[in-house]
Amino acid sequence: MRKLGVAVIGAGFWGRNHARNLKELNETRLVAVCDKDEAKAKAVAELFGVEAYSDSREMLKRKDVEAVTVCTWSTNLAAETMKVLKARKHALVEKPMANNVQEARKIVDLAKKNQRHVMVGFLMRFIPGMQRIKEAAEKGEIGTLVYATARRVSEWPERIGDVGVVKDLAIHDIDITRYLFGEDPVEVYAKAGSLRYKQFEDHAQILLTFKNRETAFIEANWLTPYKIRKLVVTGSKAIMTLDYITQEITMETSGQTLAPRYEVKEPLKLELQHFANSILNDKEPMITGLDGLKAVQIAEAALKSARRGTAIKLK
Amino acid sequence: MRKLGVAVIGAGFWGRNHARNLKELNETRLVAVCDKDEAKAKAVAELFGVEAYSDSREMLKRKDVEAVTVCTWSTNLAAETMKVLKARKHALVEKPMANNVQEARKIVDLAKKNQRHVMVGFLMRFIPGMQRIKEAAEKGEIGTLVYATARRVSEWPERIGDVGVVKDLAIHDIDITRYLFGEDPVEVYAKAGSLRYKQFEDHAQILLTFKNRETAFIEANWLTPYKIRKLVVTGSKAIMTLDYITQEITMETSGQTLAPRYEVKEPLKLELQHFANSILNDKEPMITGLDGLKAVQIAEAALKSARRGTAIKLK
Amino acid sequence: MRKLGVAVIGAGFWGRNHARNLKELNETRLVAVCDKDEAKAKAVAELFGVEAYSDSREMLKRKDVEAVTVCTWSTNLAAETMKVLKARKHALVEKPMANNVQEARKIVDLAKKNQRHVMVGFLMRFIPGMQRIKEAAEKGEIGTLVYATARRVSEWPERIGDVGVVKDLAIHDIDITRYLFGEDPVEVYAKAGSLRYKQFEDHAQILLTFKNRETAFIEANWLTPYKIRKLVVTGSKAIMTLDYITQEITMETSGQTLAPRYEVKEPLKLELQHFANSILNDKEPMITGLDGLKAVQIAEAALKSARRGTAIKLK
Amino acid sequence: MRKLGVAVIGAGFWGRNHARNLKELNETRLVAVCDKDEAKAKAVAELFGVEAYSDSREMLKRKDVEAVTVCTWSTNLAAETMKVLKARKHALVEKPMANNVQEARKIVDLAKKNQRHVMVGFLMRFIPGMQRIKEAAEKGEIGTLVYATARRVSEWPERIGDVGVVKDLAIHDIDITRYLFGEDPVEVYAKAGSLRYKQFEDHAQILLTFKNRETAFIEANWLTPYKIRKLVVTGSKAIMTLDYITQEITMETSGQTLAPRYEVKEPLKLELQHFANSILNDKEPMITGLDGLKAVQIAEAALKSARRGTAIKLK
Repeated sequence: MRKLGVAVIGAGFWGRNHARNLKELNETRLVAVCDKDEAKAKAVAELFGVEAYSDSREMLKRKDVEAVTVCTWSTNLAAETMKVLKARKHALVEKPMANNVQEARKIVDLAKKNQRHVMVGFLMRFIPGMQRIKEAAEKGEIGTLVYATARRVSEWPERIGDVGVVKDLAIHDIDITRYLFGEDPVEVYAKAGSLRYKQFEDHAQILLTFKNRETAFIEANWLTPYKIRKLVVTGSKAIMTLDYITQEITMETSGQTLAPRYEVKEPLKLELQHFANSILNDKEPMITGLDGLKAVQIAEAALKSARRGTAIKLK
Repeated sequence: MRKLGVAVIGAGFWGRNHARNLKELNETRLVAVCDKDEAKAKAVAELFGVEAYSDSREMLKRKDVEAVTVCTWSTNLAAETMKVLKARKHALVEKPMANNVQEARKIVDLAKKNQRHVMVGFLMRFIPGMQRIKEAAEKGEIGTLVYATARRVSEWPERIGDVGVVKDLAIHDIDITRYLFGEDPVEVYAKAGSLRYKQFEDHAQILLTFKNRETAFIEANWLTPYKIRKLVVTGSKAIMTLDYITQEITMETSGQTLAPRYEVKEPLKLELQHFANSILNDKEPMITGLDGLKAVQIAEAALKSARRGTAIKLK
Repeated sequence: MRKLGVAVIGAGFWGRNHARNLKELNETRLVAVCDKDEAKAKAVAELFGVEAYSDSREMLKRKDVEAVTVCTWSTNLAAETMKVLKARKHALVEKPMANNVQEARKIVDLAKKNQRHVMVGFLMRFIPGMQRIKEAAEKGEIGTLVYATARRVSEWPERIGDVGVVKDLAIHDIDITRYLFGEDPVEVYAKAGSLRYKQFEDHAQILLTFKNRETAFIEANWLTPYKIRKLVVTGSKAIMTLDYITQEITMETSGQTLAPRYEVKEPLKLELQHFANSILNDKEPMITGLDGLKAVQIAEAALKSARRGTAIKLK
Repeated sequence: MRKLGVAVIGAGFWGRNHARNLKELNETRLVAVCDKDEAKAKAVAELFGVEAYSDSREMLKRKDVEAVTVCTWSTNLAAETMKVLKARKHALVEKPMANNVQEARKIVDLAKKNQRHVMVGFLMRFIPGMQRIKEAAEKGEIGTLVYATARRVSEWPERIGDVGVVKDLAIHDIDITRYLFGEDPVEVYAKAGSLRYKQFEDHAQILLTFKNRETAFIEANWLTPYKIRKLVVTGSKAIMTLDYITQEITMETSGQTLAPRYEVKEPLKLELQHFANSILNDKEPMITGLDGLKAVQIAEAALKSARRGTAIKLK
């Protein structure tokens, strides 16, 4: 099959990972790297033998750029993604996709109008163990889904500036619980606070209630000395757990705990591969702009709930 | 010092543990055991060489009974405790102390009127590691307390009948978070459901908000294949964790994780010892009838919140 | 079925556990407790409502004593066991059974001569998980047995005086590896030393080679801050692990790790039950005096190897 | 400081890691990559923008190549290293350095004759936690060193062909125990076998005795479903443990377990950095050809002990 020509906007730590994977994948040909900071763009571009840009509009003129992954600071994600879509390229935009619901909606609308694919970077879905949990949920192996609890905590991040833990961390679990339960939450109640970082919340506890009465509790903070990324899904027949860091999963039933072994894979690689294949085959990606929009909506509702001190109903 | 004469009402699994400890403690002299089921009373009484009763009123006439521990089914706790207090004996009543707030209040009032001590069996406080966490919180070692998350889950219990997980399990963590934060919650939002047991809730997720904006998330269910009893307390300076089953604690700061080793002790023994010493020295016990009343109030508010689907404010 | 009349010689910590279990088992009737220290004997006897003796010969005159469990200091085990067998009672003797091979052999011979059963207290065999590992080994689930590694370490013991770690700790694993491999070792090479306790070795590493070329590595010491009791059995098809303290086992194959859940049982209870049933049904116990003799032989060979600095061949 | 010009011989999986790190380090400038398989050499060279060679002699003529890292199949390590030294370049040779003692000695002699540095790739020494253990040992924090136990097991390796587990895996722990104890073993006793792989041993248990009576037990095999790389060092004052995979260490004393947190670092990067700095500053590297020779000697003695069934004394 032919290779999809891809460019990357955002040459920081995460953009570098995008570039590396796009260079290595059989499905893609890394064409160019862009960053407002020219030096950064050059450093990454040189590492992979491609061209560097400091103005994305210039880069987007290239015919050999068919799709673009957007990995900038959260604040700029939406603006850059709009440029990509305007230039009639497909886009994979890192979470949280946009700062607010309005920006997110604009992206969804423009993608539809220009008939371009938009995928959102909720890469947790691509961990092999997560796929197994999804399969187990669909096949009834877990039984009736009761609730999920997610813990996504870490130290004070080096790279931070423009969003708090809800849009930076919890949003992954908001997407995952939507994915696993296969439906949208109808209510959210959250508590959040700023212990050290005055501008944004550095700790949050969110309780989501779903249509079929399942609930999800999400804990996110930047106050824990080391990274913990865990998920527990409790069902009537079994409990499944996932450690996002080791990628180990367990299925616990009354008689035993079973921990199947999967080869550890780089979820970003699988995500970019899925993105490329979706475009090459003109199929809707697993995670669309609509998923991104919904995640932002729920995140904003959580922040509103925390501010107001009440539960917020979601339509 | 002289030994306190103690009797036990309720000769089931837990009452047997009470009897064993009271027999072994230096501070107490086990005098008698009572159970509506005469055979049960005899079995336990014989094991420890004391007298058996099937009518607590008869047993309460004995002068050598100065204090009584009440370990019956939840449904009968309050009624039996009232008999004990009416007979002017001191009482240690197992959690949840009473079925509802009214019963709990009556106990508190009668104890006050008759000037008898009432202690409630929230034995988790007596785990050495819990005492260390309380100390660390008081000394500022954890810094500003942000939140606590508690997980108290297990299999379908053998002994069950008259309360759900909120009053059977979560009530321990309700008491513990009051104890650690040193204040009462001002709001509770909970979700609960009955997956298998139609009469009472078998799973619950409770979010408590405290006066100084700390929060506590409590998860309790009877749907997990094995017992897990864990607590995590997150503060601005450190995270402390406790595994109630192994009694191991850790203190996690940015530079290290420290796990001090404490001799494993039977919390029930320490609780009964504290009860006896409180009476012998005429000091108010660490956990009073008022603590029990508050725990029941919060538990009932949680159940109300779950029923109504709204947050409940607590005065 | 009728109850076997049993007495206990040795009223220390472990003897008390024997007495408690014998009191509780359906198969046994605890008749008396004996200890050279009369106060100790009385304390335990009174706890269980039986008679106390300070001279075992007196106690052994009783007709209602059919079998005796011997739980004295290691130094006295053999002497007391000989008294028991001379009095024509059956005996369960705690490990290591005897101080040396000669004493052990005398016990085996006398038991045979007087046609009495002798069982040795290698209670590790009775942990449900150990039974599962034995079954897995026999059924070929582990494949060809390659080797076992055992780690049995702890802090400086409170109760110690007359044997080092080889005869106190490692002897359990010597018995277990004989049990699992189903054969006797042909060679032993060991290193041991006395770091703190001048009289006996407080650390040892033993490498046993078995007839079919399986090997077993046993590590035992009193230098570790907390108790660790673990076993790993490596086979061509699977690895099985057992944590003696939690009783958890795992079976690890290339595709998964499986941890079946067994009810935690008190191995001492199962051992005493097996002992009683062996006598009541006149069947040879699972662990005979010959097993005890062999374990002592191997333990002594290990100590010899450590002293001489050479491997020792075993016939 | 100036950058050291470095080339890599061996463009397989591990050689690629060498190349990547040499490309990224400030101290080095990756100049060329060589592999008998021209396609492999080109693939890696192109990835990093350097020249490819299929004949190392050609590459060694380059003046800008000052040092070379040798990462070929074990069988070819010594031969290629000799070419490097003959061409008067410094060499870092991957373990096991050579197939046998004679080859290893030739390397040591030639390096001395031509006054070139030789370093051996025992990268485990460079894990931050290992450095901490070494420091703790030197400062007496662990007390008197009693023994070390190492477990280095994994699944059947993809890349294998010319050495068994002793020279492929155990040799790391042979080096580490020499490093931590600061002396050479005086005796080795080993058992090894070939369960699946007829040509070389796929499982081994090695017991080393050191001059001051410390011992080290090393277990290595390719029969375990997943990678385990652990070390436990037992001393009179403390036990230290290291998990090579997570890089987590613990220090266990009677009162507590302490787990200091170190930033996870790529040991290969630190090793290559140390190599480069040693040459740039003309200082002897931490791990010399002599360390490599000794490790091979001990490994061969272990294999001899396993073949003969006796302990082997080492001078």
